[in-house]
Order: sequence, then structure tokens, then C-alpha cells
Amino acid sequence: MSDIDTSQFLIKTEPYYRPVGDEIDQYAAAYDVRMPVMLKGPTGCGKSRFVEYMAWKLQRPLITVACNEDMTASDLIGRFLLDINGTKWQDGPLTVAARIGAICYLDEVVEARQDTTVVIHPLTDHRRQLPLEKKGELVDAHPDFQVVISYNPGYQSMMKDLKQSTKQRFGAMSFDYPSTGTEAEIVAHEAGIDLKTAERLVQVAQRSRNLKGHGLDEGMSTRLLVYAGQLIAKNIAPQAACQMALVEPLTDDGDMRDTLQAAVTTFFPEVSDSSKVA
Amino acid sequence: MSDIDTSQFLIKTEPYYRPVGDEIDQYAAAYDVRMPVMLKGPTGCGKSRFVEYMAWKLQRPLITVACNEDMTASDLIGRFLLDINGTKWQDGPLTVAARIGAICYLDEVVEARQDTTVVIHPLTDHRRQLPLEKKGELVDAHPDFQVVISYNPGYQSMMKDLKQSTKQRFGAMSFDYPSTGTEAEIVAHEAGIDLKTAERLVQVAQRSRNLKGHGLDEGMSTRLLVYAGQLIAKNIAPQAACQMALVEPLTDDGDMRDTLQAAVTTFFPEVSDSSKVA
Amino acid sequence: MSDIDTSQFLIKTEPYYRPVGDEIDQYAAAYDVRMPVMLKGPTGCGKSRFVEYMAWKLQRPLITVACNEDMTASDLIGRFLLDINGTKWQDGPLTVAARIGAICYLDEVVEARQDTTVVIHPLTDHRRQLPLEKKGELVDAHPDFQVVISYNPGYQSMMKDLKQSTKQRFGAMSFDYPSTGTEAEIVAHEAGIDLKTAERLVQVAQRSRNLKGHGLDEGMSTRLLVYAGQLIAKNIAPQAACQMALVEPLTDDGDMRDTLQAAVTTFFPEVSDSSKVA
Amino acid sequence: MSDIDTSQFLIKTEPYYRPVGDEIDQYAAAYDVRMPVMLKGPTGCGKSRFVEYMAWKLQRPLITVACNEDMTASDLIGRFLLDINGTKWQDGPLTVAARIGAICYLDEVVEARQDTTVVIHPLTDHRRQLPLEKKGELVDAHPDFQVVISYNPGYQSMMKDLKQSTKQRFGAMSFDYPSTGTEAEIVAHEAGIDLKTAERLVQVAQRSRNLKGHGLDEGMSTRLLVYAGQLIAKNIAPQAACQMALVEPLTDDGDMRDTLQAAVTTFFPEVSDSSKVA
Amino acid sequence: MSDIDTSQFLIKTEPYYRPVGDEIDQYAAAYDVRMPVMLKGPTGCGKSRFVEYMAWKLQRPLITVACNEDMTASDLIGRFLLDINGTKWQDGPLTVAARIGAICYLDEVVEARQDTTVVIHPLTDHRRQLPLEKKGELVDAHPDFQVVISYNPGYQSMMKDLKQSTKQRFGAMSFDYPSTGTEAEIVAHEAGIDLKTAERLVQVAQRSRNLKGHGLDEGMSTRLLVYAGQLIAKNIAPQAACQMALVEPLTDDGDMRDTLQAAVTTFFPEVSDSSKVA
Amino acid sequence: MSDIDTSQFLIKTEPYYRPVGDEIDQYAAAYDVRMPVMLKGPTGCGKSRFVEYMAWKLQRPLITVACNEDMTASDLIGRFLLDINGTKWQDGPLTVAARIGAICYLDEVVEARQDTTVVIHPLTDHRRQLPLEKKGELVDAHPDFQVVISYNPGYQSMMKDLKQSTKQRFGAMSFDYPSTGTEAEIVAHEAGIDLKTAERLVQVAQRSRNLKGHGLDEGMSTRLLVYAGQLIAKNIAPQAACQMALVEPLTDDGDMRDTLQAAVTTFFPEVSDSSKVA
Repeated sequence: MSDIDTSQFLIKTEPYYRPVGDEIDQYAAAYDVRMPVMLKGPTGCGKSRFVEYMAWKLQRPLITVACNEDMTASDLIGRFLLDINGTKWQDGPLTVAARIGAICYLDEVVEARQDTTVVIHPLTDHRRQLPLEKKGELVDAHPDFQVVISYNPGYQSMMKDLKQSTKQRFGAMSFDYPSTGTEAEIVAHEAGIDLKTAERLVQVAQRSRNLKGHGLDEGMSTRLLVYAGQLIAKNIAPQAACQMALVEPLTDDGDMRDTLQAAVTTFFPEVSDSSKVA
Repeated sequence: MSDIDTSQFLIKTEPYYRPVGDEIDQYAAAYDVRMPVMLKGPTGCGKSRFVEYMAWKLQRPLITVACNEDMTASDLIGRFLLDINGTKWQDGPLTVAARIGAICYLDEVVEARQDTTVVIHPLTDHRRQLPLEKKGELVDAHPDFQVVISYNPGYQSMMKDLKQSTKQRFGAMSFDYPSTGTEAEIVAHEAGIDLKTAERLVQVAQRSRNLKGHGLDEGMSTRLLVYAGQLIAKNIAPQAACQMALVEPLTDDGDMRDTLQAAVTTFFPEVSDSSKVA
Repeated sequence: MSDIDTSQFLIKTEPYYRPVGDEIDQYAAAYDVRMPVMLKGPTGCGKSRFVEYMAWKLQRPLITVACNEDMTASDLIGRFLLDINGTKWQDGPLTVAARIGAICYLDEVVEARQDTTVVIHPLTDHRRQLPLEKKGELVDAHPDFQVVISYNPGYQSMMKDLKQSTKQRFGAMSFDYPSTGTEAEIVAHEAGIDLKTAERLVQVAQRSRNLKGHGLDEGMSTRLLVYAGQLIAKNIAPQAACQMALVEPLTDDGDMRDTLQAAVTTFFPEVSDSSKVA
Repeated sequence: MSDIDTSQFLIKTEPYYRPVGDEIDQYAAAYDVRMPVMLKGPTGCGKSRFVEYMAWKLQRPLITVACNEDMTASDLIGRFLLDINGTKWQDGPLTVAARIGAICYLDEVVEARQDTTVVIHPLTDHRRQLPLEKKGELVDAHPDFQVVISYNPGYQSMMKDLKQSTKQRFGAMSFDYPSTGTEAEIVAHEAGIDLKTAERLVQVAQRSRNLKGHGLDEGMSTRLLVYAGQLIAKNIAPQAACQMALVEPLTDDGDMRDTLQAAVTTFFPEVSDSSKVA
Repeated sequence: MSDIDTSQFLIKTEPYYRPVGDEIDQYAAAYDVRMPVMLKGPTGCGKSRFVEYMAWKLQRPLITVACNEDMTASDLIGRFLLDINGTKWQDGPLTVAARIGAICYLDEVVEARQDTTVVIHPLTDHRRQLPLEKKGELVDAHPDFQVVISYNPGYQSMMKDLKQSTKQRFGAMSFDYPSTGTEAEIVAHEAGIDLKTAERLVQVAQRSRNLKGHGLDEGMSTRLLVYAGQLIAKNIAPQAACQMALVEPLTDDGDMRDTLQAAVTTFFPEVSDSSKVA
Repeated sequence: MSDIDTSQFLIKTEPYYRPVGDEIDQYAAAYDVRMPVMLKGPTGCGKSRFVEYMAWKLQRPLITVACNEDMTASDLIGRFLLDINGTKWQDGPLTVAARIGAICYLDEVVEARQDTTVVIHPLTDHRRQLPLEKKGELVDAHPDFQVVISYNPGYQSMMKDLKQSTKQRFGAMSFDYPSTGTEAEIVAHEAGIDLKTAERLVQVAQRSRNLKGHGLDEGMSTRLLVYAGQLIAKNIAPQAACQMALVEPLTDDGDMRDTLQAAVTTFFPEVSDSSKVA
């Protein structure tokens, strides 16, 4: 443990976050009783940013783990490494978080295998313990420790879901895309473009979000809007910027691409398409 | 073995447990003859709490293992680790329990692979032995040792079940949610709210439990009711608290969410919904 | 090899076994010519007990391995471990048995992977050898060595069966539940209850055995009857004892549970049901 | 290599083998040109015994490997082991055979994974080389080295077969059960019983072999007949001996068992059935 | 890190690249804001060449990783190796790129397993960090670092696609085969043949590209045209060169081969076919 | 590298190869521009022999790797081994070939896993590099290095095929069985029999090749004809030799065997069948 620099997990500067309801108070109350929290919502709507903001606000270290289907329980808990003096235990990110009292954020937790999700059970009930069975140690979580998980309900298939015995260990908060005005402000601020252009980008995105489930898996995220804005700020023509940042990443289907390009042309009627290479 | 601190497995303070029948006497009789015991019942109805209570009452160390489909037999029994003097055997939790005479509680045992469940066979018949084949040692279980397993019959699929040759090694006890009065007392006690509010939370939960199998995999657990109560005690509006702790964790389905919110509004008719972020 | 205490594999006291036919003479003749033996029969009807009894009677060490689908050939044969002087070979249970002339009992052998079952081939024909290929050693089996396997024909699926080239290496003996009188004597003796109560328990079990294939995978084993008797001896009411030891372990199906409870009430008409927790 | 005792692979005494055609001359001619040979035929008809006999006759060491689906190429070729002086290469059985000029017999080769079978390719064409890629060595086979494989065509499923590029590297010889007279002589000789009893055993077996594909995967092998004879020689009643050695190992199906028992009764009409335990 | 020679990743000489639109300016703008970029397009149309050209133009080191379905996250990030002084961390290509500020090009990223693709998430949002969880280090990406991925939309099956949460981290650029004139210039330049012959090769290729989805998975790539040109330059007859470089690599289907050969004969009507061996 | 004896990869004596068209010139032209080459054709028609011949003719070392589905990228590239001085890198066969300028022949490349085939990508385009990512080294291929792969189009299933992005990196040459006269000369030369007998063997083989796709996966290879000839030269009767070398290896189907035996009898009408053992 002594070789982990815990200050690296503190968020040094206030993350840019625009609250859209009571979510800050609700999260703070949940943290107050150290309730594990589940953040639900579509890709790129600001769940990760919100956790960073709350970690900064609460002045707690934040340890983020991007979950995936090949991650093992040892990737979270830790493992023995071979040293010149024999084996040496190396804490995993969850164990580090439990020891130093960090917020441990498991991003897209449904992607993980079951042993990963089951590992958090004793940390998310009255026990607040993490048994390191391979090491024969029972770690009592630091009083400040909290588990936060995120997942995207629309995107998950029926085959890949959290077990009820996992779900029922969490309070849950639903996130969605911000309102037009709020999102335009965010895009303008982050991309360094005028609010008018930002609003037009948001309007393109809203069209795409209405197509979710009708040929698109997801609508355009706020992050993609910022990308488009950044390209425009670098003097790329808006239509080309939108195609590169909004249309191409979303779909490989020709018809759907035409539909999205039509939405772009509606709000950015200028100039001709030159973004198609070759 | 000498490097395991066995006192860490003793339950120091009496767990809060409200008996609902003869289960304490029945378990005590089973422990008296060291009969392996299987606890059956839905998520969060108090099976784990009951084992902790009995371990405290019988003054036996308790070693709990949360089973999962990626757990191997070695995770239970132990393995060789590399040391400066060569390899060193590290007992797993089941072996530790067998040596020190602990109650070994395998939570959600059907989640485990077959090699995990088969490993307990020689410990759960007249032999009461654990062969450490990799070490060439045959551990005779401590006279106080007992195996307890839990599982959730409603939740298990047909594809994932215990083998008959495993099931028939256990006496079994069925658990269910407590009665209204008992559950309200538990929620009030654990969340620090008044009994009236706790009763209303229980009534919301009972509505959800009637929906089990009709769109819900499980009803709201007692644990979630305690979460909702804790948020209310932190001055979160009851409707928002219920949405965060009771509705959102249970379902991602829009219609089902409306149904559950209607149940919340019935028992907590105050104020407007502001818990939806964005 | 020198670090294996072979005396630990000797059965010190005569196991309680009630013969039901010529099986003792037949097994003794098979052992005389060192014929590998396969024991077939339902769960908990006494196959393992019989092997223990014969090992005691023949005064041979007995090494039992509970097979499972995750067991590898190395788990049976042995492997190299790292030592301060380099690698060191560790015999597995089958190799130990072959060297010291033990009876090696592979319980539920169909559960094992093919490499486990193929490993016993050269030990079960005229060669009586075990090649330790990783070690470059060819072990000639001790003259007293014998392989015994068990399996449960009714329980095995069509997909999981022994290869013919394995089956045809064994003489086979079929086991079934003992007759009413014999089984009642066993239950009375093992549980410490009167013969009358034991007989009633056996009658309950026989009802359940008739339901095999009609909603039950297996009937109640003798072992479960002993459990029920032990609880009765500890002053648990017979109905509650039967529910805990006979009904609950067997099925999660409501209708089948009612059927079994009706059988219990027929033979134990006393008192009311209080064994359901909550 | 120097730590392998090659004399252990020589067959010291002439194996009992009854030739049934020109197979000895044909195999000798194939060995003369070092043609790889494939032995085809049902379980227990004498393929392994024939290879042993030829190895004895040709005075070549014989290395037998029982193939299985979990065997890796390294199990055949060899691997690096850790030693006090670093890693040390350990030849596998195929490499040992190639170096010392042994006959390498891969029993039931279709059970192996593809990497096992492909490994023998460069040893079975004009190259006669074995590349130890992990060691950076190219082993030229000893002039006396030969590869022999066996497989059971009737038993193999369509899904599990040798690749054509493997098959076409071998000359092939078909084996079948011996004629009645020959088989009876073998059984009488091996079991130590009179020829008359042996003939009756063979007649029982022939009935079962006619049922192959009509409810039986295989008929009774010569090995099982020897088992039955050995039990009879130990004074077990013929019907009981046949049930234990011929009927029970072959099938778990009640109707098929009745059919086989009827065949037994036809040829051994004496006494009553007491071989069923319980 | 100090043992990595970063200069080896610089492109020393200007790669031959013919721009076909605004792609150079667009990529440069994206690099300016360090936007992760996804290159979409068919096999062999010049995606890899374009990245090399841009790396040369921007004077950034380029680290290319050919993704495949067996690649693990450790293959990208790094792993511990055993050294005489114990374990030593070895950076993977992604970590090296993040440290030295290289462009990291993940070629055919959809071929990789999920843990590979998820690993780039924290490097492709505002965090620009790479957590080396096994090492307990959080690498902040060098300011010049950028991630580029490629994939081939037409070739990917529905089952193998990037997750939306991955896709929406990238701006995307579509590539296609160049125009006839441009492609002929490229082929003439690279193969050292006259423009007229090069044009005829391009015309053959265009016929094959029209067959994509109608019996061909892909049309002939520019690379194959260069191969054909090179063979012609080495005095192989054009029909034979086309068959070897254009027809045979594309298809094993007899009818489709006839169709493609007809296209060859149309544009290269000279001489007879002698390229079929045997 | 210094511990690899590269001279072992040179073909010392001219392999017996009968050219059947322009294949030698075509291959030489391809090698001249170091074009990667794919050899297509049925089992045993001479692809491997052709590569050996060309390696001998071009005086280049030849490194052959028999691919299989369990081969990993490390088996081709290399891996770290543990040494008394820590870990030591061991080049795999592909890396050795790239360093010393050998022809690297990957036999039956479609059998390999994707990570094996993808590994050759950077060696088969303009880069001609092999990144040893685990070692942090980028190997520039020796100017004489070339990759050659073989595969059998008829035998491959639809599920197992090379990716287009792999295929389009190779010029391809189709091979087939030689003409009757040529093949008879080869068989006579290799088996040491007269041309007349060899011709009859070829005629038997041609019958079988016409049955390909009509009950046979492949026809008889030239190699099997040589085997049959060798047995005849060892005084085995032609019918028995043909059955052992031509009929039995090809099929286990009774009807197909009769058909092939009839073909044998047509061309070798002498004597009776005695090759069936038992």
C-alpha cells in the first residue's frame, strides 16, 4: 500500500459540470450514509463527469475502472507478484479505494464478468468488508469509501444484465441528455464556439436521438457535439465537421447516413460536401 | 495456518435479527449434529443476517464466501504460492474454516462452478474430511466445523442448479420476507425513521413483491427499504428517496417504472417528482 | 513419495455396512484378480460406504477423489512445483495410490473431463502402468493397487457418458436402495431413534422414490433419512424435521412440495407446521 | 535426454498374440520402409496388444501415449521446466521416441486436439524431422523411429475425425474381433478357464456384437470376456460373473440389459441371479 | 521506458501518398485538438498509408498495432516480466505511445477483444490517462499523443462491432478506392510499369469491385494491382500475372474465377493461360 | 539469435521435383520482388515439395511451420524464457526467418488462429517489419526474407477461411495433381517400382479423385501411391498393398471401401484379399 501515491486520485481542478436537477443533493445524501450508487443513462450524457464533479466537491479521491468482459476479480482486488524476496501482494484498484477511502467508480459494470460484480457484494452491505481470500486478509473499508457503478439500460441486451442480488445493493439515479439550452452552453464552452452554432449542433443531435431504436443504437452524445464544435473552431467547414464528428462515428448504414446528413444540411445549409475522402 | 488471525472471524456484537418462527431452534439442532444446512429464499430477505446471528449466538467464527461462476476449487481450498524458500501452501477459506471449526457460509452457491460444489462433498457426509490433493494432506474437520449454503430458488434458471448428489447432503430451511409489522420495525430501526413512514415503505415493497414473475424478477428487498428510509432521514423528499432507492434499482422498463411510481405516490402522495436528473 | 503419510489412507474402524446380497464376495473376487470395478446406482444409496467397508475388510489404504468437470489430468497424476532447489514433482492421488498399492476410488467419474478418464486406461488393462509423461517416468502399479469408479446412470444426461473404451475396462456392480427393514435398521442405528420412527421415515422416502422421473430427479436418500432422524432425536417435531431434512432439500417446486408434505403427514400425522421461517 | 532410461520402453517378455492373417508380415514391410501406420478397429479387439507384439518382435522400444481432448502439443513434444540453473528442456514422449528410435504409439488419436495431430506431420513425410520451435532445435528422427496411431471408426462421430492431410500420411490396417475358435483360445488362456466355458462366453459376446448400432454402441470386447472368465475361475457363479463383467459395463438401459441377460441365460442356464446388490 | 528507442517509430522518408480530397486538412485539424480518429474503408484502399503519411507530415512517431481476436489488454498496456532482480514492468505499445507522444494506430480494431478496446477509453476522453492497474500507476498521456483506429464496415459482421461507448469517442473519416486516374498513377509509380498497362489493371479491379456482395467479399485492392504490375515488370505474361496477383488470391470459387478471368482477358487479350501449375 | 544454427535450414540436396508448367519462373519473379506467395491445392499434390525445391534452387534457408488451431502468435514470434540471469528472449521461427533472410513457409495457414495470421501482416506489405511488442523491438526483415503460405481450398469449410485483409497480401498459385505420365514417373522413382505398376497405381488414384465430393473428402494423394509402391517393392501382394496404403487411409465407409477396392481389382486383378486382419 505504501507504494501507492493516493494524491494522484484527487481531482485537482473543479470539473465543468452543469447541474440539471437535485442530483447533487441526492448524491450527497447517499454519500452521507455511504449508500452504494448506480448511475443509469445513455452513452456520453455526463455520468462519468458527474462522478468526477462529486468527488471534487466532496474532496474524496476517485478511482475509476472501465469494466470489460475479460476483466477478472483479481484485476479489481489484486494479486501476488514475484519479487526477489518471493511473492509480493499488489492491491488492485478496488482494494486501494477501500483502504484509502476513495470513491471507486466501476464504469459500465454490466460488461464485467460475474466474479467482478460479486466481489463488491461484501463492500456494499452492512459488512463493508473486502475479503482478500488469496492473501488471507479481511479488509475493513475506510469510513469514507463508497462504490459507484454506471450502466446504460437501453444498450444492454437481455442476456447481459446485473443479477438482482447485485442491483438491490444500490440506490440508483437516472441520467439523460441535458435540455437544449443547457447542452448548447456546454458545447459552446467546451468547444470554444458561439452559442448559435452550438444550438444548431444540439438540434442535429436531437434529431438523431429520436432515431434511437429506429436504426440507430444510440443518438449523438454531447461529447460528439463538442468534437464537431472543435473542428469548426479549427476552420473546418461545418458540414464536413458534422460528417466527421457526428455522422460517420454513428453508423455504417448508407440510408441512415443520408438521413443524418439531411439533418445536418437542415441546420447547416452552407457549402458543398468535401469531407468524403476519395 | 499460524498466519491466519481467527479472531477476525468472530462476530463481536449481536447482529440485529428478528426471529419469525422456530428457525433458531431448528438451526441450533442442526448445528448440534453438525448437519450441513441450506438456506433458501429471495434476495435480501435476511438469509445472510440469520447466519451471522446464529454464528454470534453459537459463538463460532463465521467465514463467508460470495460464490460466482468464475470461482475455482482452488479459491476455496487453497493453493501454492511462491516464496523465497520455494513454494508455500496458502489455505483457502474453506480449509481455514475446516481447521479452526468455523461455520463456512457459501453465499449463492449455485453461481459457482461444479468443482467448487463438489469440493464440499467429503466435508458434508460422515467423512468430514477435506483432501488437499495438491498438497497431499487429508484435513479432518474440526468438531465445530459446519457448512452452510444459500440459494434463491425463484431466481435460478433451469440450467443452473445444484446436483442432486450435492442437495441431498443438506438439511434445508425456507426463508421469506418478514410480516408487515416485523419488517416495518426492522426498517425503522435500521434507517432511523418513524414507524409510520417505515410501514408505508413496507407497503410499497409488498406491491412490488406481488409483481414478481409479472414483469419483475424480484420484489423490493428489506435492504432497499432501509436505503429509502436513510435518504428520507437525510431530508430527501420521500418520493425522490423512493425513486432512487426502490424504483430505479429494480427495473429499466418504462411501464414497470410507472407502475412502481404509482405505488410510491399512493403511499407518499406529497410533493412533485424532482429526482429525475436532466 | 517419502513425504506422503500412507497410514492416513487406512480405514481405522469398521464402517457400518449392511450387506444386501453377494456383493462382498463378488467384490473380493474382483479384487483378487485386480479387476477394475465400476459401482452403479442412485445418489446416497451406499456406494461410497461400500468401498470404505471393502477397503477396511481387505485392509488396503483407500484414496477417494470426488470428480468434477474442472478437474485436470494433472490433478490426478501430479505436477511440478517450484522449490528452492528448482522444480519438484508432486504425485497426485492416483499416482500415490498406484505406488503404495491403495484402492483408488474415483467418485462420480462421468463428471470429469476426458483427460482424467483416459489417464486411467494404462492402469486398467494388462499393462497396469501409469506414464508420468511430464516427468519421463513410467510407474508400474503396486501389486495391490486397484481402480474403482462410481456413477449414477439415471442422473447422467446422454451428453455426458463414459467412452466405451473406458467402460469396457471395468467389471460393474449395480446398487439400489436397501429393503425397508434393512434401511430402517440403518436409519435407527445411525440417527439414534427407535425402529418404528425409522420405518415411518423409510415409508416417506419410498413414496418419494416412486416419484422419480415424475417431477423429481431423485428420491430421498438414506442419508437424508438419517438427517431427519437426528433432528427428531434433538427434539425437533417430526413434521418440521421431515420438512427440513426430506422435503426442502429435494425440490423447489410448490406442487411437488405439497405432495411430499402430504406423504409426511400420512406417516407423521401429529402437530402443526411451524418449520416455515417467516 | 541423458536422464531418460530407454530400456524401460523395451517389451521384456513376448506378449501373448494370436495372428489372424498376414498382419505381421504387412506391418513388418511397413516398418521396413518406416511407413507410418494407422490401426483401425473396435474397442478391445487387440490393436494395442498387436503393437506391443510387433515392438517385441522387432526389438524396438515402444512408447505409448493415450490421447485425449485436453492434451496439448507440448505434452507430446516437451516443455521448459524451471531449474536451479534456470530453465531446462524436458523432452515429451514423441521427442524421446524420435531421438531413441522407438515406435511411438498414439492410442485413440482422434481424441486429441489438432495441434497434437499436426505435430506429427513433419515426422510422417519425407522430412522425418521434429521441429522443437520453442527450443530452436530441429530433431532428425532416428532411422528406427516409426509413428503408429489407432482409432475406432465406428465410435467416432462425424464431428471428430482426422484431417485428410493427416490421414494420407499413414498406411492403414483394419482389425476386428478374432474368429470364435481363436477368441475362445485367448479367453481360456488369459482367464485360466476351460475351453468349453470360454467358447460359451464368446458366443454371448457375439450376440452382443450383433446388437451394435441397434441399442449398443459397442459389443463385448475380448477383454470383458477375460474378466468374466477370471471371476468364474474365482468361483463366482457364471451368471453373476457374466452380469458383472459383460452386462453391467455395457449398458444402463433396462430393456437392453434384459436382452443381454437372456443371452447369458441361453449359454449359462445354471442357477439363479444373485448378483444384483440390494 | 529508457530501453525503448523512440526514434525507430519516426517515419524517415516521405511515404508516397496521393490526396483525394480535404482529408489532410481534416486530419490535421483533428490532431490539433487531439481528437481520436477512426478511419473507415475497404481492405487495401490506403488507410494505413494515410496514417503513415500524416505521421511523417506532423513529424510524430507512429506505433502501429495489428489487432486480432486473441490479443489481450496486456498486449497493449504491458506486463510484468521476471528479472534477476524480481519482476520488471514492460510497457506495451499503447503505453509507450502515451508516454512518448506518438500516434498509436490500432489497425482493424474490431478484431480485438473488448478488453483491448475498453482500455483506450480513458485515453480518448477529457482524462487522457492510462491506468496501469497492475502496476498501480496512472499515466498522463503526453500532449502530442493521439489514438487512431481503422476498420472496414462492409467486412464486419453484425456480431462483431464496436460498442457505441467506444465509437462515440472518435471523429471518423471514410476512405474508398481512388479514382481511375489517381489509382493508375499509383500503380504505375509503385510497380514501375507504364500508365497504359496500369490503367488496364485498374479497369480489371473495378469490375471485381462491382462484384462485392455478389459472390466476392471484397474487390481487388490497390496493393494487388501493384503486385500484378510488378510481375509484369519482371516479364511475366500479363494474363499469368493477373491470375497470380488478382484472381487466385480473391476467390476459390470456380465460377467466380471464370468471371474474373474473363475480365482479365477483356483488358489483356494477349497470349494463352499457362499460369495454372499442373 | 547467435544460438540458432542457420545452416540447418538450408536444403542440402536437390529435392526431386517435376515441373508441370511455368511455376518455377513465376515463383522466381515473385521472389525477385519479394512478393508473399500463397500456394493453393489439394492434400499431397506437391506444394511443400515445390517450396523445398525453390528454396534449394534460390539457395535460401527454408523454415517450415505446420499451422494448427492451437498455435499462438508467440509460437511464431517468440517468447521470454526464464534463465539464471533472469528472462531471456527466444526468437520464434518467423522471427528467425525474418532475421536471417529465410523463406518462411506456413503450411495450412487457415488452421491457425487469427493472431497467428495477423502477425504476418506487417511483414507482407511495404513495411516488411515484425514488431516484437513484448520485447519492445521492431525487426526490419532481411532483404532476402519471404513469406509463403499454403492452403487447401476444397477442404476448408466456410467457417474457417483467411480474412480478405490477409488474402490480399499474397500472390497465389494453384496446384493440382500432376498428369498421368508425370505422376507415374514420380511414383516409380520414389517407390523403386517399374513404370507399368506405377501407372496402374496412378489409374487407381484417378478413379478416387473423381469421387471427391461424392462420398470422399479427398482423392488419393501421390504420397499414398508411393506408400503402395514401397509395399509392393517389399513383396506385399499388390491388392493387399493397395488396401493398406490407398483404401483404408481414405475412408471408413463400407460402401465407399467396396467402390475403391473394385477400382483396385480392375487394375490389379491378381490373387485374393488377405490384408484384412481377423
